[in-house]
Amino acid sequence: MFLTRSEYDRGVNTFSPEGRLFQVEYAIEAIKLGSTAVGIQTSEGVVLAVEKRATSTLLEPSSIEKIMEIDQHLGCAMSGLTADSRTMIDHARVEAQNHWFTYNERIKVESVTQAVCDLALRFGESANSEEALMSRPFGVALLIAGIDENGPQLFHTDPSGTFMRYDAKAIGSGSEGAQGELQEQYHKSLTLKEAEVLSLKVLKQVMEEKLNSTNVQIAIVRSIAADGTGGFHTYTEVECQAVIDQLS
Amino acid sequence: MFLTRSEYDRGVNTFSPEGRLFQVEYAIEAIKLGSTAVGIQTSEGVVLAVEKRATSTLLEPSSIEKIMEIDQHLGCAMSGLTADSRTMIDHARVEAQNHWFTYNERIKVESVTQAVCDLALRFGESANSEEALMSRPFGVALLIAGIDENGPQLFHTDPSGTFMRYDAKAIGSGSEGAQGELQEQYHKSLTLKEAEVLSLKVLKQVMEEKLNSTNVQIAIVRSIAADGTGGFHTYTEVECQAVIDQLS
Amino acid sequence: MFLTRSEYDRGVNTFSPEGRLFQVEYAIEAIKLGSTAVGIQTSEGVVLAVEKRATSTLLEPSSIEKIMEIDQHLGCAMSGLTADSRTMIDHARVEAQNHWFTYNERIKVESVTQAVCDLALRFGESANSEEALMSRPFGVALLIAGIDENGPQLFHTDPSGTFMRYDAKAIGSGSEGAQGELQEQYHKSLTLKEAEVLSLKVLKQVMEEKLNSTNVQIAIVRSIAADGTGGFHTYTEVECQAVIDQLS
Amino acid sequence: MFLTRSEYDRGVNTFSPEGRLFQVEYAIEAIKLGSTAVGIQTSEGVVLAVEKRATSTLLEPSSIEKIMEIDQHLGCAMSGLTADSRTMIDHARVEAQNHWFTYNERIKVESVTQAVCDLALRFGESANSEEALMSRPFGVALLIAGIDENGPQLFHTDPSGTFMRYDAKAIGSGSEGAQGELQEQYHKSLTLKEAEVLSLKVLKQVMEEKLNSTNVQIAIVRSIAADGTGGFHTYTEVECQAVIDQLS
Amino acid sequence: MFLTRSEYDRGVNTFSPEGRLFQVEYAIEAIKLGSTAVGIQTSEGVVLAVEKRATSTLLEPSSIEKIMEIDQHLGCAMSGLTADSRTMIDHARVEAQNHWFTYNERIKVESVTQAVCDLALRFGESANSEEALMSRPFGVALLIAGIDENGPQLFHTDPSGTFMRYDAKAIGSGSEGAQGELQEQYHKSLTLKEAEVLSLKVLKQVMEEKLNSTNVQIAIVRSIAADGTGGFHTYTEVECQAVIDQLS
Amino acid sequence: MFLTRSEYDRGVNTFSPEGRLFQVEYAIEAIKLGSTAVGIQTSEGVVLAVEKRATSTLLEPSSIEKIMEIDQHLGCAMSGLTADSRTMIDHARVEAQNHWFTYNERIKVESVTQAVCDLALRFGESANSEEALMSRPFGVALLIAGIDENGPQLFHTDPSGTFMRYDAKAIGSGSEGAQGELQEQYHKSLTLKEAEVLSLKVLKQVMEEKLNSTNVQIAIVRSIAADGTGGFHTYTEVECQAVIDQLS
Amino acid sequence: MFLTRSEYDRGVNTFSPEGRLFQVEYAIEAIKLGSTAVGIQTSEGVVLAVEKRATSTLLEPSSIEKIMEIDQHLGCAMSGLTADSRTMIDHARVEAQNHWFTYNERIKVESVTQAVCDLALRFGESANSEEALMSRPFGVALLIAGIDENGPQLFHTDPSGTFMRYDAKAIGSGSEGAQGELQEQYHKSLTLKEAEVLSLKVLKQVMEEKLNSTNVQIAIVRSIAADGTGGFHTYTEVECQAVIDQLS
Repeated sequence: MFLTRSEYDRGVNTFSPEGRLFQVEYAIEAIKLGSTAVGIQTSEGVVLAVEKRATSTLLEPSSIEKIMEIDQHLGCAMSGLTADSRTMIDHARVEAQNHWFTYNERIKVESVTQAVCDLALRFGESANSEEALMSRPFGVALLIAGIDENGPQLFHTDPSGTFMRYDAKAIGSGSEGAQGELQEQYHKSLTLKEAEVLSLKVLKQVMEEKLNSTNVQIAIVRSIAADGTGGFHTYTEVECQAVIDQLS
Repeated sequence: MFLTRSEYDRGVNTFSPEGRLFQVEYAIEAIKLGSTAVGIQTSEGVVLAVEKRATSTLLEPSSIEKIMEIDQHLGCAMSGLTADSRTMIDHARVEAQNHWFTYNERIKVESVTQAVCDLALRFGESANSEEALMSRPFGVALLIAGIDENGPQLFHTDPSGTFMRYDAKAIGSGSEGAQGELQEQYHKSLTLKEAEVLSLKVLKQVMEEKLNSTNVQIAIVRSIAADGTGGFHTYTEVECQAVIDQLS
Repeated sequence: MFLTRSEYDRGVNTFSPEGRLFQVEYAIEAIKLGSTAVGIQTSEGVVLAVEKRATSTLLEPSSIEKIMEIDQHLGCAMSGLTADSRTMIDHARVEAQNHWFTYNERIKVESVTQAVCDLALRFGESANSEEALMSRPFGVALLIAGIDENGPQLFHTDPSGTFMRYDAKAIGSGSEGAQGELQEQYHKSLTLKEAEVLSLKVLKQVMEEKLNSTNVQIAIVRSIAADGTGGFHTYTEVECQAVIDQLS
Repeated sequence: MFLTRSEYDRGVNTFSPEGRLFQVEYAIEAIKLGSTAVGIQTSEGVVLAVEKRATSTLLEPSSIEKIMEIDQHLGCAMSGLTADSRTMIDHARVEAQNHWFTYNERIKVESVTQAVCDLALRFGESANSEEALMSRPFGVALLIAGIDENGPQLFHTDPSGTFMRYDAKAIGSGSEGAQGELQEQYHKSLTLKEAEVLSLKVLKQVMEEKLNSTNVQIAIVRSIAADGTGGFHTYTEVECQAVIDQLS
Repeated sequence: MFLTRSEYDRGVNTFSPEGRLFQVEYAIEAIKLGSTAVGIQTSEGVVLAVEKRATSTLLEPSSIEKIMEIDQHLGCAMSGLTADSRTMIDHARVEAQNHWFTYNERIKVESVTQAVCDLALRFGESANSEEALMSRPFGVALLIAGIDENGPQLFHTDPSGTFMRYDAKAIGSGSEGAQGELQEQYHKSLTLKEAEVLSLKVLKQVMEEKLNSTNVQIAIVRSIAADGTGGFHTYTEVECQAVIDQLS
Repeated sequence: MFLTRSEYDRGVNTFSPEGRLFQVEYAIEAIKLGSTAVGIQTSEGVVLAVEKRATSTLLEPSSIEKIMEIDQHLGCAMSGLTADSRTMIDHARVEAQNHWFTYNERIKVESVTQAVCDLALRFGESANSEEALMSRPFGVALLIAGIDENGPQLFHTDPSGTFMRYDAKAIGSGSEGAQGELQEQYHKSLTLKEAEVLSLKVLKQVMEEKLNSTNVQIAIVRSIAADGTGGFHTYTEVECQAVIDQLS
Repeated sequence: MFLTRSEYDRGVNTFSPEGRLFQVEYAIEAIKLGSTAVGIQTSEGVVLAVEKRATSTLLEPSSIEKIMEIDQHLGCAMSGLTADSRTMIDHARVEAQNHWFTYNERIKVESVTQAVCDLALRFGESANSEEALMSRPFGVALLIAGIDENGPQLFHTDPSGTFMRYDAKAIGSGSEGAQGELQEQYHKSLTLKEAEVLSLKVLKQVMEEKLNSTNVQIAIVRSIAADGTGGFHTYTEVECQAVIDQLS
């Protein structure tokens, strides 16, 4: 019954009689209002691709940041509340830098994902630490892509602080259709190039607007070569158009 | 249903079942009650123009401050709650000064915008830092205009802490009509002079009162020349009248 | 609908669905229950005049303090909750003294007004600074009159923390009628003497009791001469009667 | 409507839609349940007289303390919640002592009154200072009587933190009738002796019990002579009976 | 109306529209559920007598502590919540010891009573001192009996923090009948021995069980002789039986 | 009326209009859901016996701890919430150790009981001390058995922080029937051996399962002999079976 | 009645009139939504087996962590909220490490279980310690398996902070059926190998999907040999398949 459910929403972090945490579930709803993002892991690296919804032709598309670098070997695509994601990405960056300075090695992809999820878990009313905690769950899902001694990896986080590793994963308003498409088309032997094309193919199916080089963004994470090349790289419009050209 | 919605308003920072943050949405409503402001970016600089609503002929128009300087290369137009905007602008000024003293260079337009948005995001009940945080979202939208090594830029911020870069943007009670007009008339090759006239033309269409040199205010941000001229400049009544004269 | 509105009142500092802050609006209502005060700015100085409501003939009229000195060059008339205004005036006095001791110059009229408004803005639940903050808005409107290098000035502040500069302004229960009268009669070339008479004429029209030298109070702020004369001055009963005599 | 009003009572310090502070108004109601007290100022000094309601003949009347000394030149009569008044009087005594030790002069009557009212104003939810603040308004009205360089003075304070100076004032359950009587009978040339008799005459009219030397209490504040005599003095039963004898 | 009243109960320390503090009044109700206690003051000393309700014959009557020593010259009978009274008595004992160590004299009966009442007053939500305060009023009434330079004294305290001095006073479930009996039988010339008998006579009338040496307890406070005898003394069962024997 | 009652439950530590503390009464209900425990005091020592409810045959009965040692001369049986009791017993153990280290003597049975009850009293919203306090009453009743210079003693504590000394006492779901049985069969001259048998006889009557050496537990507290033997001792299954054998 | 019950849910840690703690009971419901886990203790060691629910074939099964190492001699299977369990396991690991560093011996299985339960108990509103406490109960049940001087042991913890030792125990959505199966098939003389097969047999009956080496996980805890082998060990897919092969 709806009225009864609403009783439980006031306490941001309390169980319902069925053992559910509604504020977390509602935060997950916030993500379903966000733009679609797709991540695909291959043996060569990970591809991230996102839709950019421009509400006005006067809006500068490059200022819609849905894909962000965390470290040289780590990138991230987001869906949901943009402002919330900044706090999470900043946390991830600090964790990555701290790891580097303390151990002189790059943080593992799973470690940085867990750090972000630990932050996500700590919302609510009992804030007694010195950090300012969120008074509600983060309304953000992340696709964290990275590469470490275990090879390329793709992790998905949600507002409950849970994370899972995926071969390929879609989030946001078109995630249902996109995930179905990924499930059909994904295979372990995909090359990075093929994954780029697949990621846009999947986005194309769920986007309302016609896909072009300004309303999608692609980024990849590859091994970092001895000369420092590789790692996280966001595609320019030209590079992006090149992938689009392969779609048809 | 309205009654249910109201259930969620009491917690200032909680999700509704649809994943929405009502207090933030209501703060956005507060801006729709404010006076209209317009920003236009050109390759020569950025124009800001605002309507000033004088509720009495005895009111000194110059005391209605809707456009404010942040730094020599940074200005700002606001719509919404005047008192709230003071806190945000003060924060922006401190950030700009700190950047100058620390790095001996002018803060980037995007950096100062992000600093303001980070402040906007941090409202609610879990305030544990030493700063006094707002217990509700800021009821203010800003058009931040500035110039840095990336050229002239115009950013728009809203109460959710989200910011976007625009070629031209209108906020406030007349924003809908004004934005439509901008979309029709804006083109990338506008000169600064043409943009000044366009900004008033747009305001004229959405203002209830007849536009004159005391009920609108114009400011521009241009490159700072080697001799220190240029940068942010608010127009005098005479300069403003000169632009108005070009309208008809 | 009234019942719905009341839902939003419990959180003292939250937005309603229409983007309104009800506690601030209700505090403005509190001022409409207060006695009327009038301020008029001339090129020679500023006049403040207030009504004093004596609920009993045994009440000592001089103990009703509606006009107060802030500094030698600064005065203030109030309407609304008397006890609240003491906190605001004390804050203004401290700011004025601090400015004097730090910069060895008199604080500007606009600066002291802004300081009072910043205090007004900071109410609500997130009080984390060391100062004890109000848990509700101040139920007070002020007319701050002063003189500095920009000449005589009159500012009006309200519970939202907004301030505006006026040529002439009325606050309190009779403010509507009084403001209309001021609008009709005010002109820029008024002498200070004429403004004194006008201020009482305006009060006379909105007061229920017959105006006399004990139920009104007048104060002026003029330039401070080299010999230290001038500045803020509250009229004695005799001086006040002299102005009343010119009314008829 | 009553139900709506009750909505506003939960926040102890919030405005109602009409701009009223209900908790303060309810505290004023608490005083109307208290015993009657009367204060009369003359040019020779101030008289305080209170009714003492003995609920049992076994109750020791001297333990009902409705009149208290603050300093040698300052006394006080109270009506309302006895326990609350102790906190206020203690605060007044400390202020008076501090003034004496700091400036080597007696605190002014108005200064001590203002100190008590500042305490009264500071109740509610935002308590951040180190002092333990009341979570509700003080349910007490005071008649503060004293003498300083401005002569004998009588101040009245209420739960809102407002204070006024009166020639003669009544508080408590019988205040309405008593104040009417005072208004009729008071004149500026009353001697202290006449004021004593008048104070009891007024109490007699509003008391349910027959007035006698144990159910009323009288105190006066006179100038302090060079030999230290004078100042605040509470009448003994014999002195009190002597005044009663003059009533008929 | 009952529903409306309940609205005010949630804030433990707020006024009702009639100026009442319901939580304090409800705490007074808690005392009416307690066992009856009686105190009688004579010129020789003070008698305290209490009923002990044994809910089981297996209960050790001596573990029901309704009369407690505060200091050698101070004792106390309680009615209401036993656990609450321990906190109050502990506070009284500490105050008495502190007084002794600081001034090398015994604390006055009124001073220790006031200290207990100050503690009682300080409950509610604004606890900012370092002590842990009660979140509700103490559900306890005390009869504090003592002897000092003003002779034997009996004080009564209630949950509102109010205290009064009585010749004879009854508290608890049978207080109404007991107080009536005391009022009839008490006279100033009672000897301590007569008061002992009277106290039991009064208890006998209001107790449901038949009075015997295990379900009542008697204590007296007399002058402390030079040899240290006297002061507070609780009667043994034998001494108690001796008084019972005089009843019939 | 039930609806009204529920109004009072939200404030965990507030009085109802009848002067009752519902959260404490509900905590007492929690104990009625617990397993039954019995304590019997004799001149030789105290017997504690408890029922152990095994919800599964795979449950290791020894991990159900319903009887715990506090110190060598002190033991304790509990009924109610197991996890809550751990906090109380830990507190008791620390108090006992502190006493030993400070005074080099064993803590008295009554002192340790009072320490536990003081902890029980301090729940609710005004927690300002450095210890983390419970936000609700402890849902536990204890039977504290011990021996000191006053001989063997048995105390009963409940969630209100009240404690009483008993000759014999039963707590938990079967307490009503068990207490009746104890009342009939208990006499002061019981030997410790007889008390052991009686305790099981009483449990047998109220237990749903058939009593055996794994679903009951017995412990005794005797004098500590010079050689360190005696004191608190929990029976092994064999010792327990020996007592069971005497039942039939 | 349901509506009444919901009244009690808002206070996360308050008793219902029947003495129940609903938030704890709802947290237990959360576990019933979780995947099934089984633990079986033998004389050779303890087996833990869990179901892994993969919602997508693209999900990397190894990233679903339902069994975790606490220390070399301690492991743990969980059901319920994954993110919550991380906090509990981290706490257990720190406790285990602290014990090792302080006493140079491995922590006992019961000690580490109690430490986890003490954390679980400390949720709610009175958080005053320096640690950030949960504002709700942990929605997690754990099966803690370990080995110490008392041999192999299996403990079960629930959200109320209660722990019990079991021979064999199932938790999660299929726990009811699984526990029944365990009760039938378990006997004390099971070898570790037989227990492995039994654990999968039990899981197989309650899992919806067909059991295979990627949707179940097995771990064992054995004695640690002198050469450091043994202790906690999670089975590889190959080892797991070997057990599955013995099922049919």
